[in-house]
Amino acid sequence: MAHATNPHAEEILDKEFPCLNAGFVRLVDYMGGDESIVQAARVSYGKGTKTVNEDHGLIRYLMRHLHTTPFEMVELKFHVKLPIFVARQWIRHRTANVNEYSGRYSVMKDEFYVPEHQAIHFQNLRNKQGRREEDVPPELRRKVLDILTNSQKQLYTEYEQLLESDIARELARINLPLSLYTEWYWKIDLHNLFHFLRLRMDDHAQYEIRVYAEAMAEITKRVAPMAWEAFEDYILHSEKFSRLELKVLAEHLETSDFTKEYLESKGLGKREAEEFLEKLGRIHNR
Amino acid sequence: MAHATNPHAEEILDKEFPCLNAGFVRLVDYMGGDESIVQAARVSYGKGTKTVNEDHGLIRYLMRHLHTTPFEMVELKFHVKLPIFVARQWIRHRTANVNEYSGRYSVMKDEFYVPEHQAIHFQNLRNKQGRREEDVPPELRRKVLDILTNSQKQLYTEYEQLLESDIARELARINLPLSLYTEWYWKIDLHNLFHFLRLRMDDHAQYEIRVYAEAMAEITKRVAPMAWEAFEDYILHSEKFSRLELKVLAEHLETSDFTKEYLESKGLGKREAEEFLEKLGRIHNR
Amino acid sequence: MAHATNPHAEEILDKEFPCLNAGFVRLVDYMGGDESIVQAARVSYGKGTKTVNEDHGLIRYLMRHLHTTPFEMVELKFHVKLPIFVARQWIRHRTANVNEYSGRYSVMKDEFYVPEHQAIHFQNLRNKQGRREEDVPPELRRKVLDILTNSQKQLYTEYEQLLESDIARELARINLPLSLYTEWYWKIDLHNLFHFLRLRMDDHAQYEIRVYAEAMAEITKRVAPMAWEAFEDYILHSEKFSRLELKVLAEHLETSDFTKEYLESKGLGKREAEEFLEKLGRIHNR
Amino acid sequence: MAHATNPHAEEILDKEFPCLNAGFVRLVDYMGGDESIVQAARVSYGKGTKTVNEDHGLIRYLMRHLHTTPFEMVELKFHVKLPIFVARQWIRHRTANVNEYSGRYSVMKDEFYVPEHQAIHFQNLRNKQGRREEDVPPELRRKVLDILTNSQKQLYTEYEQLLESDIARELARINLPLSLYTEWYWKIDLHNLFHFLRLRMDDHAQYEIRVYAEAMAEITKRVAPMAWEAFEDYILHSEKFSRLELKVLAEHLETSDFTKEYLESKGLGKREAEEFLEKLGRIHNR
Repeated sequence: MAHATNPHAEEILDKEFPCLNAGFVRLVDYMGGDESIVQAARVSYGKGTKTVNEDHGLIRYLMRHLHTTPFEMVELKFHVKLPIFVARQWIRHRTANVNEYSGRYSVMKDEFYVPEHQAIHFQNLRNKQGRREEDVPPELRRKVLDILTNSQKQLYTEYEQLLESDIARELARINLPLSLYTEWYWKIDLHNLFHFLRLRMDDHAQYEIRVYAEAMAEITKRVAPMAWEAFEDYILHSEKFSRLELKVLAEHLETSDFTKEYLESKGLGKREAEEFLEKLGRIHNR
Repeated sequence: MAHATNPHAEEILDKEFPCLNAGFVRLVDYMGGDESIVQAARVSYGKGTKTVNEDHGLIRYLMRHLHTTPFEMVELKFHVKLPIFVARQWIRHRTANVNEYSGRYSVMKDEFYVPEHQAIHFQNLRNKQGRREEDVPPELRRKVLDILTNSQKQLYTEYEQLLESDIARELARINLPLSLYTEWYWKIDLHNLFHFLRLRMDDHAQYEIRVYAEAMAEITKRVAPMAWEAFEDYILHSEKFSRLELKVLAEHLETSDFTKEYLESKGLGKREAEEFLEKLGRIHNR
Repeated sequence: MAHATNPHAEEILDKEFPCLNAGFVRLVDYMGGDESIVQAARVSYGKGTKTVNEDHGLIRYLMRHLHTTPFEMVELKFHVKLPIFVARQWIRHRTANVNEYSGRYSVMKDEFYVPEHQAIHFQNLRNKQGRREEDVPPELRRKVLDILTNSQKQLYTEYEQLLESDIARELARINLPLSLYTEWYWKIDLHNLFHFLRLRMDDHAQYEIRVYAEAMAEITKRVAPMAWEAFEDYILHSEKFSRLELKVLAEHLETSDFTKEYLESKGLGKREAEEFLEKLGRIHNR
Repeated sequence: MAHATNPHAEEILDKEFPCLNAGFVRLVDYMGGDESIVQAARVSYGKGTKTVNEDHGLIRYLMRHLHTTPFEMVELKFHVKLPIFVARQWIRHRTANVNEYSGRYSVMKDEFYVPEHQAIHFQNLRNKQGRREEDVPPELRRKVLDILTNSQKQLYTEYEQLLESDIARELARINLPLSLYTEWYWKIDLHNLFHFLRLRMDDHAQYEIRVYAEAMAEITKRVAPMAWEAFEDYILHSEKFSRLELKVLAEHLETSDFTKEYLESKGLGKREAEEFLEKLGRIHNR
């Protein structure tokens, strides 16, 4: 038996998905997909899974109930070109394998991140880590871009000067800015990729890393479409309510409004409807 | 400056919390507590935290917003005596450090898990991995216990026989049952401990591991009481609703019922109230 | 571009390599091979690698100099059937992904490890964790096997009895012995697999896990033959000498005996010969 | 019982060890030391260790035989101030916990790495990642420093300008150079710290990270002096010889030159002498 291949993934294999002004992400290789999640889950459940006979339902069940290990059986390898300040946020995810371009071994290329006009924002006043919506006047945008691009040019020229004087590469590079592009191979399993995407597709993530996360979402969708759908439904577009919030909600939700029939008419599966009712019961009994 | 010590934790340091018929868990050492979570968080936020001037609020904020790395700065080390079948579930948590008693080096002790009467249950019919509530008749319970304890005695006698014949320890032990007790030192950071506790205090966890998780919860509460409270409020007693469930909820929740004033009167903090309203907005706009 | 496939690996894909009396290991899937190690290394070294133009040499260089991250870019997934006491040693390697057959969900199968006659050994007197060479007399061997197999039969019968009484599976199983077979999917990257193999192919590893390690070595050799060769030369068949041992060696090694020409005539590469001489220099100058 | 404290470690707790022109490393907290390595090892070996009754010998035995898990039972937490290009190398060690100062939340401080005169070197011609010994002429050194410091001043001024225009902090910082100082809390267990130190105290590590590794070595020595000594003897000052190198060595080493008595007279322990002879035997029999 040869490797299973997935035509939707093969189609985009090695294709660059452009990100920002000069970056990209591309899928270099992958191992497994929805079918390997199911395969791994069935070894855990053995005979016991006979009744969960549908892959789709099984994958959704696993995602809903935090049975995360079968998702670890799928692996994706990306080639990414990204600004260093994005790389610094990205690398905080420790459950991946990385090989990065090295400025000690090689000469860094003359490529820098320059934000598009609409990516230039004022400081968010409420959220200390973010940008605010209000438009930045065109002349200020232009000024920002001038400052950035002029210094980038100058710094690269100085870098070249130091290299020409034969200064060690590892030292010559130390004044290169965080907006410089670097590259890496990055390999991760699907469970940990979902965790990465949940955090990095979030509104609170910096815009520049979100652009990469969105591109990777497109790719992931093709490698494991059922798992992706379950991820969207149960994680990405879910909301968590705290103990206190649930107490407030409980006062505004009539248990009798929610019958199994009603819930199923709204699209919930049989099992999901039961689980919803159990959840409601827990909330009211707290 | 010497180590900070926490009197509530020191009080129970080295005290055995009994678990099951012959097991225990005890806190052997710990590093840090609520104050080290705050310390680590403040380095991340630098000057920016001046306004979040209350440790309690900061810890709750971190927990609510999945800023998990400061919780990794607290470390707990436990000594645990537990049946092997519990150890097999426990060890699946890979983010801990373990030193286990070795049956290759040493002779295993004659101690086996024997369930209390009320821990003997029938197979749950709906939940393939669980027990059902219905009472097991006393005579069947007795039969179960007889089968278990007789075989345990016999197996240990056979083990001793093999050792007396000078058979290698690593081989002599292979027929010892999963109910045999083993011991280990187990060290983990607070973030990963919370993850462990969330999964192992859950109703779906096997009763026998839940007993240990409950004991460790008591200990953890003393090492980092503010973090524990936040964990209870935002994780342990929270509920997550899926995309579809939120759609259903949205139809039954009047946005106008929930004002900031109302929410604060129900005990939510100012910031929490705002976040609740944002959540409600997201649900209705989906 | 489609997945690269490796004919030597494809040949054995899904083939069971028998281990012990009823176990096996089989390669279920893999991602990458020698070529992906090189690919990842070249992104790190960028232009700088132009002179290291041979994959073979590059892979050997990486292995020799502990540049381990490129080896993490290859991934192997195994399906393994193994006795529980072997599984307990195996799972201590935390850098892998695992899905194991669950005795809570499913009925365990009636299969137990029974050692072959020649695997039955006396306790090693010097090495507390091992077996000694001396032959165990045939009648004692027979006695050992009788004890093991009789109890295995009895324990399985008791397990069935408990299941027939409808006792919860998670409880009914607790007296099953460590010699019972379990199964799992186990996925790991090549760097961490080498680490596993180094420890588990070692003489000090228990015989029963060594059998699996040897089978996996055969498989790994086919997935990444150049990396395997480098692993054998620089890790598996290497020896490390301590500070004191080197001092002793230094007194018995004439530096002048070892010239580059001599070393190359013995099969060392140009670069290796230089490195050997540097090592010798360090030893003498300590 | 209260926390064990170690006076040699307490003495330096919270003391800054200066590194480079404006950085430092300081021990913020620690858990355990030599005694907790022994404690953990003894649970593994149980009764079996009665004969290894000396902590010192036990710790050396563990280190020599790659029994690494007991070393994981010691934990150290550092506060480090370091240039970003050093932080980028450092963070590649994934088995640690980190909380870094955030340029999204806070304003970066006006502090940059400026190399001392003697740290300015030419590119190494043989070793692509390094510096060469030859002195850089004073006027070139001055030129290098001028380029670096002038740009650092200019970039910080531009950063302040952008902040004054109220541009979002997360964007304003993108042209800050890799020589800018950042800070973090970094927590790691002793086994993984040794791995870090082995790689980062090595000649091939960049000078600037070596400075930090040396400072941390001083600290580690105080937290676990016996483990440190074993690390130096068996790891740091050891040498590994490949299969081919051993073949060459074998031709130049007379087995009869090395008796137990001779080896013990050279300072090897009884057990070490035996192990040395076994090693020699393996080399000659290959």
